[in-house]
Amino acid sequence: MINQNPYKNTSPLEVRKLIREGKITGQTSGMCDGFAQANLCILPEKYAYDFLLFCQRNPQSCPLLEVGDAGNKFLNTSAAECDITTDLPKYRVWEKGKLVGEFTDVSDYWRGDLVTFVIGCSFSFEGPLMANGIDVRNISENHNVPMYLTNIDTKPAGIFSGKMVVSMRPIPHDKIVKAVTVTAKVPKVHGAPIHIGSPEIIGIKDISKPDFGEPSTIRPGEVPVFWCCGVTPQSVVMNSKPDFCITHAPGHMLITDIPEAQLQN
Amino acid sequence: MINQNPYKNTSPLEVRKLIREGKITGQTSGMCDGFAQANLCILPEKYAYDFLLFCQRNPQSCPLLEVGDAGNKFLNTSAAECDITTDLPKYRVWEKGKLVGEFTDVSDYWRGDLVTFVIGCSFSFEGPLMANGIDVRNISENHNVPMYLTNIDTKPAGIFSGKMVVSMRPIPHDKIVKAVTVTAKVPKVHGAPIHIGSPEIIGIKDISKPDFGEPSTIRPGEVPVFWCCGVTPQSVVMNSKPDFCITHAPGHMLITDIPEAQLQN
Repeated sequence: MINQNPYKNTSPLEVRKLIREGKITGQTSGMCDGFAQANLCILPEKYAYDFLLFCQRNPQSCPLLEVGDAGNKFLNTSAAECDITTDLPKYRVWEKGKLVGEFTDVSDYWRGDLVTFVIGCSFSFEGPLMANGIDVRNISENHNVPMYLTNIDTKPAGIFSGKMVVSMRPIPHDKIVKAVTVTAKVPKVHGAPIHIGSPEIIGIKDISKPDFGEPSTIRPGEVPVFWCCGVTPQSVVMNSKPDFCITHAPGHMLITDIPEAQLQN
Repeated sequence: MINQNPYKNTSPLEVRKLIREGKITGQTSGMCDGFAQANLCILPEKYAYDFLLFCQRNPQSCPLLEVGDAGNKFLNTSAAECDITTDLPKYRVWEKGKLVGEFTDVSDYWRGDLVTFVIGCSFSFEGPLMANGIDVRNISENHNVPMYLTNIDTKPAGIFSGKMVVSMRPIPHDKIVKAVTVTAKVPKVHGAPIHIGSPEIIGIKDISKPDFGEPSTIRPGEVPVFWCCGVTPQSVVMNSKPDFCITHAPGHMLITDIPEAQLQN
């Protein structure tokens, strides 16, 4: 490994504690090898049915790992002793579709009517890609994965609708098939790619300027490969404008106790 | 084939029309080869979030194929021109957890606040089992699959909780592994078995007396193999007692337009 994350072999429980204490504040790719990371979307109960239905209708963008009980900021199954308002390195707070700000702690925003949605993250298939001899550029270049807003419509549900967000990893021609088959085995963390090649077909004008995260170098002979991304709910929130919403900041994920092996088909 | 269903090669649209006209009234196993059949659960909107969450938490029992829009008795994606109140051969109507009766048409019960849940059915893996040289006893004996109430708790969600219902097919010892691997490929129609052998471990006292459907002959050298069943919502409705509910009658399924091949991993 050229760049090994210093928390690669730390337990999820310990990393969540370090995050809570403010000792980890950066993006989480490469931490806690073998454990699933997750996107976060917290909404008032009055929107919970529409959002749950949105996830059911868009399972590749929003593969649910857990839905919390209304008003409970602790999770039931995916992360032990995890206070959902303090245990991610960075959050975003939204009001009526506008970003209010980014915070390392959102406990002051917690309310008794909030429901937590924990959504699988493509970081969980980066280990299997590397194990299959595929360089994951955002890891080898040590930066947040590049993410793009596309022109692909999600399937609407109730108040929620909007465009899909994708993550991109450059893959050499002769490894594209392997990248598809490896990721197809893990549908709970977005599964197989949604698009291979030509960014313009899915509405991406400049591959060097991601809408979230940082650009990855695309080397000669490599093709940009795109996977559905759990930042999609943020695009949907911007479009659908619920009164209030808390999400993770892109790349700054919930690290769960769920072994990635459990998520394989 | 010893017993080939006369509607094996009829289209789902045509079979739904024959059902609507009262020309087909029996159980649907073996009809419309290659198309997914589905369990039905229709609930008032006030219970829809709890039931959708129940399905999310119990995906092996309740793999959702579609959730309708409140008040719309036609489906959006899984079956064209399908009136959900007339196009299944037999329905059950429930009030406060009690069975009111069985009907071939529930259009008089339809209300503007009802939400339709379409749930995958194990009939969809019977073709792949047979294609792999495994005799599906309920088809070769031409009767409804035997289903049993178990002692296995589902994961509760809101008002909904109760015991799991399973379907059973006898499998020869040397074909059990193949039966597992074939069905594991189709998680949207219940996937791999939940239990193999010893019925008493999962609370089944007498394998010759199913709670729903009809008994299958278990021949010497065969083992009873159990799969999660979409009749589970009926067990849950009996236990949780929502004011009102419509389901299919066990074995009398919605025949969808979804090619079974699309549901494979």
